[in-house]
Amino acid sequence: MGMTMTQKILAAHAGLDQVTAGQLINAKLDMVLGNDITTPVAIKEFEKAGFTDIFDKDKVSIVLDHFSPNKDIKAAQQCKQCRSFARRFDVTNFYDVGTMGIEHALLPEKGLVGPGECIIGADSHTCTYGALNAFSTGVGSTDMCAGMASGECWFKVPSAIKFNIHGKLNPWVSGKDVILHIIGMIGVDGALYKSMEFSGDGLKNLSMDDRLCIANMAIEAGAKNGIFEFDEITEAYVKERVNRPYKTYKADEDAVYDQIIDLDLSTIKSTIAFPHLPENTKTIDEVGEVKIDQIVIGSCTNGRISDMEAAAAVLKGKKIHRDVRAIIIPATQKIWLECVKRGYMDIFIEAGCIVSTPTCGPCLGGYMGILAEGERCVSTTNRNFVGRMGHVDSEVYLASPAIAAASGIMGRIADVKEVM
Amino acid sequence: MGMTMTQKILAAHAGLDQVTAGQLINAKLDMVLGNDITTPVAIKEFEKAGFTDIFDKDKVSIVLDHFSPNKDIKAAQQCKQCRSFARRFDVTNFYDVGTMGIEHALLPEKGLVGPGECIIGADSHTCTYGALNAFSTGVGSTDMCAGMASGECWFKVPSAIKFNIHGKLNPWVSGKDVILHIIGMIGVDGALYKSMEFSGDGLKNLSMDDRLCIANMAIEAGAKNGIFEFDEITEAYVKERVNRPYKTYKADEDAVYDQIIDLDLSTIKSTIAFPHLPENTKTIDEVGEVKIDQIVIGSCTNGRISDMEAAAAVLKGKKIHRDVRAIIIPATQKIWLECVKRGYMDIFIEAGCIVSTPTCGPCLGGYMGILAEGERCVSTTNRNFVGRMGHVDSEVYLASPAIAAASGIMGRIADVKEVM
Repeated sequence: MGMTMTQKILAAHAGLDQVTAGQLINAKLDMVLGNDITTPVAIKEFEKAGFTDIFDKDKVSIVLDHFSPNKDIKAAQQCKQCRSFARRFDVTNFYDVGTMGIEHALLPEKGLVGPGECIIGADSHTCTYGALNAFSTGVGSTDMCAGMASGECWFKVPSAIKFNIHGKLNPWVSGKDVILHIIGMIGVDGALYKSMEFSGDGLKNLSMDDRLCIANMAIEAGAKNGIFEFDEITEAYVKERVNRPYKTYKADEDAVYDQIIDLDLSTIKSTIAFPHLPENTKTIDEVGEVKIDQIVIGSCTNGRISDMEAAAAVLKGKKIHRDVRAIIIPATQKIWLECVKRGYMDIFIEAGCIVSTPTCGPCLGGYMGILAEGERCVSTTNRNFVGRMGHVDSEVYLASPAIAAASGIMGRIADVKEVM
Repeated sequence: MGMTMTQKILAAHAGLDQVTAGQLINAKLDMVLGNDITTPVAIKEFEKAGFTDIFDKDKVSIVLDHFSPNKDIKAAQQCKQCRSFARRFDVTNFYDVGTMGIEHALLPEKGLVGPGECIIGADSHTCTYGALNAFSTGVGSTDMCAGMASGECWFKVPSAIKFNIHGKLNPWVSGKDVILHIIGMIGVDGALYKSMEFSGDGLKNLSMDDRLCIANMAIEAGAKNGIFEFDEITEAYVKERVNRPYKTYKADEDAVYDQIIDLDLSTIKSTIAFPHLPENTKTIDEVGEVKIDQIVIGSCTNGRISDMEAAAAVLKGKKIHRDVRAIIIPATQKIWLECVKRGYMDIFIEAGCIVSTPTCGPCLGGYMGILAEGERCVSTTNRNFVGRMGHVDSEVYLASPAIAAASGIMGRIADVKEVM
């Protein structure tokens, strides 16, 4: 029986010729990831279980990105705990303040995740690496603990939705609009425990950053993972970064899907998810007058260099509206430095934005731009649940960097064409 | 009877020909300052008292610099309160995320404080503006409230200590070392409720940034204020910034001082204040082996462009020690942008530092680098009290930007010559 991309990767990592949806398997892991919020919980379980070593010091990544640089004493203690654990077991890929970036931007950038690999992370947006033709998914801290100790994890093999991508995006429409469009269409449980598998002749029109953004938000449709077919764009990306052999996976011709969805990229408009669910989408022409107090451009979803490029293109020579705080967060130190070198920092500061060091901070209500009662934020992050970025009576509108930047200039949700 | 600089400014603002130490006076104010921590308390008092307007919309400054970009919901609510107050009374000098900087770096930079003026601020380091030959001092939120409503404040006229400055600083020794040296000499109550008055032929060897740093920490010797004689350096600084007439003040020949201290700048070494008081100073050659976990370069004391310049000079081509988190915080948006333009950002990031948006954050244990139990930080800030930057069992070592940078490279408190 034919298998999907995800099923083939899982089968290979379970040492099986064939798996089928619903089957429980045990798979070998190529990378186990944790951050400063989830790793301390995993460490506690690790110690409770009496484990004495990690399975492979090169295959564990610990990234202190959420509440770091330490936002409070609790965060400081948690980071300290991660630091001693990482040193005790000589964890190769330990990223602290100064080397760290937002985990899901950092791991692909550093070549720590590659095509055909099987990756778990104690963070729900671990599904990001599907952009590289990997199987990757978020797990709880207990699974992270077991994964660090054994190098294995159990999975229920997911069924799949296939997305046949055609056409080409219009200017100022990006991967973020594609995934918001999809979630708007299928709902936040539209892909529940399924894999979202992206292929088709339109893939060549989606950059790696677009794909990372799309795969990143697969979880927001309830998916187990999102995964893209390997092509020349993937190859170009990993060639510079992944210094080890890898295998690529393509779905069998006769793979079975729960659903096949055709998607013409040229029909997608700039899309905004209204409070309080990512499925509450409107296209930019349906938005109406929505005044805002803040924009955030960053996160594991949209903190990459092409996101900074889009923001800079829109903000160049413009001024942020008096009533708006504009917070820009390049996702890694490398991206941050690239923003300096490309002159984006000048544009941002001259426009009246502030630029933060890499952090997940505001996305999950951690710090660096928490919302007060009644405040509204256009954010390039991935979740707009009640109270996600602060007060229970605040509102988050998810959008692309271009739309966030335009909205920052206008003081209300706005299209790029209104400011260009 | 002769008066000191401070006494002459206070007399002029009280409409008196003569004041003497200990006298209670009521003085007209040229500026009333508050931040996001102290202004909400002042607003509450303002409303309780039934005040209906502020005395002069151009003479109130509100700067959201402490826990902003909002570090949590409480901070968000406080900033929101400041914002509505500022809009209600059309406060000219309201600085929010995007325009704000650390208040005591921002007000001089914007020309909002000038020579001969009388300034209060609901923040203890308001004494900074004495560098410009102004009288400025920190007050409580209730005085800020009364000041905003009436444009006046009562003072007990301080007696004074005169510092006769001679000579020239050695390379890598800066204003921070001067003030730490002084506090080490006279103690944290050495100038209790007195004015510290700086004059002498060595002043010409102290840059404006050195003076701002020295005046800033007058409060750490218990002083009511610190004040510098007006000279060509002051004139050059204010000429570009202060667009209104001002008067300069020099002490009378027969002014009475509690004490006169001669200070030869050439004898001052790099000085570090050990935990837990600014008076616990050692010179760099007395330090011994003190391993550290973090450096912070920034704050109202040392976040100015010459501080960034010193840090960049030391860090250029070097790497921060693996065990150290290095946090650099340019104090205003203008300084931040200047760091971009001068290439300092490249140096900082390539060295493994992170650069924050302007904020007071870590200095007072707010956010952006809070210390865990047992951790040590070399910081260019102004206070090293127990628990000031985080856990009650953490330690803060106050030093200059150059020493902080060198220490960041070595992983222990270190002299610049060890890394250059």
